[in-house]
Amino acid sequence: MKALVKEVAGPGFAMKDVPEPRIRDDEVLIRVRRAGVCGTDVHIYDWDAWAQGRCRPPFVVGHEFAGDVVQVGSLVTDVHEGDRVTAEGHIVDGRCLLCRTGNSHVCPHTKIIGVDRDGCFAEYIAMPATNVWHLDDAISFDIGGIHDPMGNAFHTALTAEIPGATVLITGCGPIGLFAVGICKAAGASRIIASDVNETRLALARQMGAHHAVHPQQASEAVKRETDGLGVDVVLEMSGVPAAIHQAFELVRVGGRVQMLGIPAKPMDVNFATEVIFKGITIYGVVGRRMYDTWHQMTRFLRSGMFDPAPVITHRFPLEQFDEAIGAIKSGEAGKVIFEIA
Amino acid sequence: MKALVKEVAGPGFAMKDVPEPRIRDDEVLIRVRRAGVCGTDVHIYDWDAWAQGRCRPPFVVGHEFAGDVVQVGSLVTDVHEGDRVTAEGHIVDGRCLLCRTGNSHVCPHTKIIGVDRDGCFAEYIAMPATNVWHLDDAISFDIGGIHDPMGNAFHTALTAEIPGATVLITGCGPIGLFAVGICKAAGASRIIASDVNETRLALARQMGAHHAVHPQQASEAVKRETDGLGVDVVLEMSGVPAAIHQAFELVRVGGRVQMLGIPAKPMDVNFATEVIFKGITIYGVVGRRMYDTWHQMTRFLRSGMFDPAPVITHRFPLEQFDEAIGAIKSGEAGKVIFEIA
Amino acid sequence: MKALVKEVAGPGFAMKDVPEPRIRDDEVLIRVRRAGVCGTDVHIYDWDAWAQGRCRPPFVVGHEFAGDVVQVGSLVTDVHEGDRVTAEGHIVDGRCLLCRTGNSHVCPHTKIIGVDRDGCFAEYIAMPATNVWHLDDAISFDIGGIHDPMGNAFHTALTAEIPGATVLITGCGPIGLFAVGICKAAGASRIIASDVNETRLALARQMGAHHAVHPQQASEAVKRETDGLGVDVVLEMSGVPAAIHQAFELVRVGGRVQMLGIPAKPMDVNFATEVIFKGITIYGVVGRRMYDTWHQMTRFLRSGMFDPAPVITHRFPLEQFDEAIGAIKSGEAGKVIFEIA
Amino acid sequence: MKALVKEVAGPGFAMKDVPEPRIRDDEVLIRVRRAGVCGTDVHIYDWDAWAQGRCRPPFVVGHEFAGDVVQVGSLVTDVHEGDRVTAEGHIVDGRCLLCRTGNSHVCPHTKIIGVDRDGCFAEYIAMPATNVWHLDDAISFDIGGIHDPMGNAFHTALTAEIPGATVLITGCGPIGLFAVGICKAAGASRIIASDVNETRLALARQMGAHHAVHPQQASEAVKRETDGLGVDVVLEMSGVPAAIHQAFELVRVGGRVQMLGIPAKPMDVNFATEVIFKGITIYGVVGRRMYDTWHQMTRFLRSGMFDPAPVITHRFPLEQFDEAIGAIKSGEAGKVIFEIA
Repeated sequence: MKALVKEVAGPGFAMKDVPEPRIRDDEVLIRVRRAGVCGTDVHIYDWDAWAQGRCRPPFVVGHEFAGDVVQVGSLVTDVHEGDRVTAEGHIVDGRCLLCRTGNSHVCPHTKIIGVDRDGCFAEYIAMPATNVWHLDDAISFDIGGIHDPMGNAFHTALTAEIPGATVLITGCGPIGLFAVGICKAAGASRIIASDVNETRLALARQMGAHHAVHPQQASEAVKRETDGLGVDVVLEMSGVPAAIHQAFELVRVGGRVQMLGIPAKPMDVNFATEVIFKGITIYGVVGRRMYDTWHQMTRFLRSGMFDPAPVITHRFPLEQFDEAIGAIKSGEAGKVIFEIA
Repeated sequence: MKALVKEVAGPGFAMKDVPEPRIRDDEVLIRVRRAGVCGTDVHIYDWDAWAQGRCRPPFVVGHEFAGDVVQVGSLVTDVHEGDRVTAEGHIVDGRCLLCRTGNSHVCPHTKIIGVDRDGCFAEYIAMPATNVWHLDDAISFDIGGIHDPMGNAFHTALTAEIPGATVLITGCGPIGLFAVGICKAAGASRIIASDVNETRLALARQMGAHHAVHPQQASEAVKRETDGLGVDVVLEMSGVPAAIHQAFELVRVGGRVQMLGIPAKPMDVNFATEVIFKGITIYGVVGRRMYDTWHQMTRFLRSGMFDPAPVITHRFPLEQFDEAIGAIKSGEAGKVIFEIA
Repeated sequence: MKALVKEVAGPGFAMKDVPEPRIRDDEVLIRVRRAGVCGTDVHIYDWDAWAQGRCRPPFVVGHEFAGDVVQVGSLVTDVHEGDRVTAEGHIVDGRCLLCRTGNSHVCPHTKIIGVDRDGCFAEYIAMPATNVWHLDDAISFDIGGIHDPMGNAFHTALTAEIPGATVLITGCGPIGLFAVGICKAAGASRIIASDVNETRLALARQMGAHHAVHPQQASEAVKRETDGLGVDVVLEMSGVPAAIHQAFELVRVGGRVQMLGIPAKPMDVNFATEVIFKGITIYGVVGRRMYDTWHQMTRFLRSGMFDPAPVITHRFPLEQFDEAIGAIKSGEAGKVIFEIA
Repeated sequence: MKALVKEVAGPGFAMKDVPEPRIRDDEVLIRVRRAGVCGTDVHIYDWDAWAQGRCRPPFVVGHEFAGDVVQVGSLVTDVHEGDRVTAEGHIVDGRCLLCRTGNSHVCPHTKIIGVDRDGCFAEYIAMPATNVWHLDDAISFDIGGIHDPMGNAFHTALTAEIPGATVLITGCGPIGLFAVGICKAAGASRIIASDVNETRLALARQMGAHHAVHPQQASEAVKRETDGLGVDVVLEMSGVPAAIHQAFELVRVGGRVQMLGIPAKPMDVNFATEVIFKGITIYGVVGRRMYDTWHQMTRFLRSGMFDPAPVITHRFPLEQFDEAIGAIKSGEAGKVIFEIA
């Protein structure tokens, strides 16, 4: 089959013809229809320090996808040939203390598809049946293919208290944009989104932000909308140190900062003034709650009040992977997806 | 001043000319503009068993209102003449263990205006400044005047987890109708509302219910919308024993039943099959959380996603109190209000 | 092998020689060392209405046990021959929405060992590896054998907020007695336990109850210890209607009633005065949270502050099953266990 | 009366004769019996950068105390002459949004006694009646006098989930030592305390720590006690950057770090590896929850399972303030108190 492969320990990907995966008895084989391209894929493409420390080429890249099931292992009882599905890309052991107490998302033995084992930028992928999530008939493969980053946004937003809240979302990449829509659907009183890029700010407005502003205007917007108090919740989606400091500055005393964006390196923090004296709570977001977050996605999509479609701005065939990576790097894109089959 | 008075220990009210209330140093005097009529007022009007046990005539009736401040006590610092306000009608001691640990709504020393002391069906009312809640400029006195029952609905709905949830609301009186709109704004995935009255079901649809059905159709609607599992949350707003049993039947295992509707008398319950084996949580709703619920109301109204106006179906001058009570008794009304000044 | 069998649809058990169970690839075979006898076993022994409706003889009885692993299926990676273990007796599907969102304890497809399939009153039992829980070296098979009912007590107590709380425990059967010890170890401020039986009250005192009284004295004890306010938390462990009414009466406004005891039939409840006007929360307890509750048990046993040993009052060989059932029926017993190997 | 005064904008205190405070109608006058000396007092004594930025001499120092009421304002109904009391030293406005929604501890208008207005290192202090907390008869003035820092420890510990938890407490000053005792009483499974000072480690053992070690041994102790996983909860009580990094390192994935210790200046943090990838929650602790924390203190003291007395290591008359400050600076002290009357 056709697959996008990280072939060697250096920059770039390669389109290759590789053998179809063989499934174990507890796995299913899925024909990939759509796959999302993620910042993580850019790191692997660029072969940066993180990628060098984590990945072991060769392997098929890609961890966000949807498709239909074409083969089912003998032990699998609840997934069937022809099912339209997406999947959680974190494969956990299911038996450690964390998995057994509802914390699979931080299972220390997690293997990620497209990072630690073969991924989904290919015609087919083998997945453990326990990782498979069924799509409602009304949900397109496009939307199915972006459940993974949408799930990051749901996890980030809905582990805070959103109904009635004032929310600042720093960073309007795809996950930030999803978060705008989620907060809107969940009854946030005011949503202020910030980004340096005008295209993304326009998307944020389309997704429901009451105010979408350059970071330099964020402070004024927050203060005006909150009588100077600060927002109840910040969703930090950028990983930019200045935005993280702004999160601590603009959250109200006793508020909550959800950190998803990953700073590239250590940064100076004044815990006294930025965290402790403010009495705030900080939550570090890893992946998606298994499978509460997936359930929430299905439910929000069913409600009709949340539509992630506008976030998808670019579509490429698998062969145009350089263009796809380039679109993300441009900082102008919403979500970039591959149309595979 | 003109006031609607419960004069004697027997049925009915009387329009009377009574002295204007005099305020204490920590109170304010409010000119009443709008006042909501409540089922509790009907009990007092009818002088039923509950009213006989609780009330001590003569007193001015009414506990839901909005108006503007015309006089301010010497100790009051944060309410000013001319402020547009509504107020929490439960006057609590503020010093008992419950009040000091965030549970004022169940303060054992609560005095309710219009029940235990003079109320708001009058041209003026004296209120402790701590009970006053300011209205945003954009909020009409109509909406201000129904904050009390709206607050019951907010308390009932938002002490459950609504975003993404499937919700059954049994009973579409005013509070049930408000709850429909709240659940809609807070991102409920499916809202099924039930009532025996077609007018109210139509209002429920207008407020955002996905399905508004006769109680006899509720079971089928719930099962269809939840793959037979039952809803995550029931908001029991009727107090009708059959509806309470239906709440226990149609909530999913591990789900939550919020009980606000007050059954008139004891009823048979099978705790084994209706509660324990189902692993559900039941929450008894008293009043409004002070003042978290009030804050939520302000925030939801600001979000623009919740509009309670359609629930108001009848308006009367204070003199037409018999008609107002009659409208409620008809079972056809949404919210009934007095237009006073 | 030797096994205690429910042979026919009528009263009694029979000691039989039956084939050793054969394990599936994802199961393990456990040599049973100790097994607890439960009220459920008494229902099956007596063949009462519940048993008649639920059970399909013939099957091996018993669902509480500990032992050592003697054989391991080919797919099992984390349980080994010789491991000292106990097990969760509720076998769930692991794949339904409830299981996938942390609510396996109410999985609609639960099969219970000793009720729906062969149980543990036998020399060997086959168990899915996912249900196995390892015992610390310091934990005896005696204690291991009563993890199931201890888990009921942990689930009941620790889903309320116990540190600093005032607690009433109605019913001092084994689960109530465990709960006394758990509340003591978790820092309850005052523990009042009630039962009609003096032996059990003495055990409650031994487990740490500050007051252990006849139900007729419970009201006075609660009021004296709580300045007349009522307790923060009631753990209802009796299933007796009078105790359930007392739970509602003696819990403070805004408090919490955890219901584990199962009333034999419907009972009259005044939801208005007993639940709604009091603003309380009721939680129906099913089984044990999987596997948070098991983790809590391990942790409490490790802390050295909780010792369930005094609750075990009777020990029998498997052959003396009539005596074991009789000891439970006497109402004088704490926990009754079988010593099997 | 005699009082310890911060007289001028420079180092040191002065014993002065000052007028007795006059109370307002909503205040009470308290004869101070015992007062605790706090690190904050040392900052004011030393007149460091923080003190220079915050304090406006002259004022009476001291914010932790207990005593008996000698005079009561005309509006006060629930405090009486002769009552034995302590008090919350944060005087809040009681009317802002935060105060009205249960977050008085972060009220932006807080005035602290002994910092922003006259404090308790004096024979008498005037306090708003709403800040007064009654002492049980069994509680000595010694213990009453240290409720403020004990309350910091209760707030820090009990906003995490302690029953059954593994806990690391970094820093065994008085608040850390109180926290050890609280965690012990609340059923922590393992308590590991760290400090550089042997005297304090001995006190930590006395308060119930399972392991009390030098910070260099903390990592090994945590790993040994948690099978290498890390602790569920860290209570960071030192403010030392190395301890804060250790908190992030030794908390398990998905765990919780409660930050009370105040670092003197900004420090480098790797949010990616220390917070986000670990999926942890950080909570900044300000003061005491009003008045949930105070209620918890009363309850824990009543339970008989928590005794803070061993933490008090030094007692001085008010005149020996230089010695009291010196005892704290030595790093060898537990709690230092003044015996005033």
